[in-house]
Amino acid sequence: MPEPRLDVIAIGNAIVDVMAPCDDALIDGLGLTRGGMTLVDTDRARELYDAMGPAREISGGSAANTLAGLAALGARCGFIGQVADDQLGEVFAHDVRAGGIEFATPVRAGDPPTARCLIFVTPDGQRTMNTYLGASQFLPASALDEAAIASAQVLYLEGYLWDPEEPRAAMRRAIDAARNAGRKVAFTLSDAFVIDRHGDDFRALIDAGQIDILFANHVELAALTGLDDFHDGIAALRAKVPLLIVTRGADGAVAVAGDEFAEVPAEPIARVVDTTGAGDLFAAGFLFGHVRGLALARCLKLGAICAAEIISHYGARPEADLKTLTAPALA
Amino acid sequence: MPEPRLDVIAIGNAIVDVMAPCDDALIDGLGLTRGGMTLVDTDRARELYDAMGPAREISGGSAANTLAGLAALGARCGFIGQVADDQLGEVFAHDVRAGGIEFATPVRAGDPPTARCLIFVTPDGQRTMNTYLGASQFLPASALDEAAIASAQVLYLEGYLWDPEEPRAAMRRAIDAARNAGRKVAFTLSDAFVIDRHGDDFRALIDAGQIDILFANHVELAALTGLDDFHDGIAALRAKVPLLIVTRGADGAVAVAGDEFAEVPAEPIARVVDTTGAGDLFAAGFLFGHVRGLALARCLKLGAICAAEIISHYGARPEADLKTLTAPALA
Repeated sequence: MPEPRLDVIAIGNAIVDVMAPCDDALIDGLGLTRGGMTLVDTDRARELYDAMGPAREISGGSAANTLAGLAALGARCGFIGQVADDQLGEVFAHDVRAGGIEFATPVRAGDPPTARCLIFVTPDGQRTMNTYLGASQFLPASALDEAAIASAQVLYLEGYLWDPEEPRAAMRRAIDAARNAGRKVAFTLSDAFVIDRHGDDFRALIDAGQIDILFANHVELAALTGLDDFHDGIAALRAKVPLLIVTRGADGAVAVAGDEFAEVPAEPIARVVDTTGAGDLFAAGFLFGHVRGLALARCLKLGAICAAEIISHYGARPEADLKTLTAPALA
Repeated sequence: MPEPRLDVIAIGNAIVDVMAPCDDALIDGLGLTRGGMTLVDTDRARELYDAMGPAREISGGSAANTLAGLAALGARCGFIGQVADDQLGEVFAHDVRAGGIEFATPVRAGDPPTARCLIFVTPDGQRTMNTYLGASQFLPASALDEAAIASAQVLYLEGYLWDPEEPRAAMRRAIDAARNAGRKVAFTLSDAFVIDRHGDDFRALIDAGQIDILFANHVELAALTGLDDFHDGIAALRAKVPLLIVTRGADGAVAVAGDEFAEVPAEPIARVVDTTGAGDLFAAGFLFGHVRGLALARCLKLGAICAAEIISHYGARPEADLKTLTAPALA
């Protein structure tokens, strides 16, 4: 097996986040699922955008956010995702590449436009996401760069992208490409509603030993295992997943690898501004430690530091210098 | 003269800001004019965007920023400016309207696209702006809503928009419409380079008594009057302009109206993050006080508070609640 050329290659939604603060009454008035991610069609996206206050646009997408964090930490990364040939697609591609991430998926001509996620941020910093998938749902398996996948130490997949059919097929093919090349497959469960729809697929992949590294939060863990108790959920998965990472918001996170178990508290922060991307950046920090061969506890600490950075400001892409922030934990 | 329906109507560039932090070396390497505003063509815009780090998009445009501040303070506002029929045009229009500002200028079909401003923000918070004018430069005089102009207490014009021919003609016609309706005309000089190109026009307007309220910073004042000394510059203009407001960055600002003179220091702030929009929001606070009939010193104080808010974060649109911030000064 040749030395990996990339540390992590990811397949994910190519989305621009459209974010605005809002009060709690607006969340209720619009009938939004507070704290969740809902897929919306063109009409609903229009309705929600019309109701939204002055916004800002920042590139997002769960896996792309994770790569942005990894690249900022110094990892070599590649991204696979579908944008349209439009201005938001240009914004997304620019921001990925400007972060030092390889991105060679051809743009898709014609409708629909590039994906966007309308994010309402309440005063407590909680984000409520409404995703218009647009071009992102049409990532074809033919767009995969299998040579790049085979050259990456870890293939990282975003559960959100399991919903649309074409990317799901592409991800299945990518899993095969990675495993045939002897690489690891990492998967993030993304959202409890995604598990409601595709839990059988996810459990089948896990049972078949196709997932080497699994990221979940405590809600997703319960949805996947059907077990409300956190420790029961971990016990049910630890024999099937070589490396399991479960985040618990303000209660920190745990990682389990065979007999090893490690735990980290959340990093203290002055004020939670916007939780968008907290899980994504936790995964970035953790994976950076992992591809560098660090112990579980150090990987968790790196995840906690990166998550704390991202929730201290608007947007799911890092603003502070993650290398500086993580230097003490890497020393 | 009927009671005004609007407090302020403005004509300005309809621009989305594309902003990224950068180090000082990049400014030099790209040959940028530090702290200034430079007009760029398609190729140069491409070159600069390629060199820019991961960015965020926030609606901008000098006069539109001022209106966003005014509307946030509770003023009734209207905007006139040209966007294209594209995604950035939609972003700009959404953000203006979501702020409660009337905006009825028809979108312009076809090329060029909506204007954008590539803003490099150095660690000291200074912004270096590179504007691709796109559709914004094609605002036709026929797009003016003269009834709306006649119904506004103040017509506010952005000097930046004096460069392209069509908007210049539109602004001249708007000045006539406002003056014929007995309304006031406010003008912001925008940039010393604009004065280099159009100082004769500006001086002619002032000499003809067409400008009731003039906003300038100390550099623009010197460029307009040819007098380096701040007090000499004010002395040269005060007889010609009924209300003159001059900002001096960290040194505060002054206002002169006939025999009246008032001065305000800059508001203390913890850290200058990004000076983009400082002058625009100063004008917003000042004009809000003015249309409410407040004394010069109070108008200046409101300007200083709004400017301090805008430089404490990225982007030229207010994030904090300006009503709350200005409540003590309005009490």
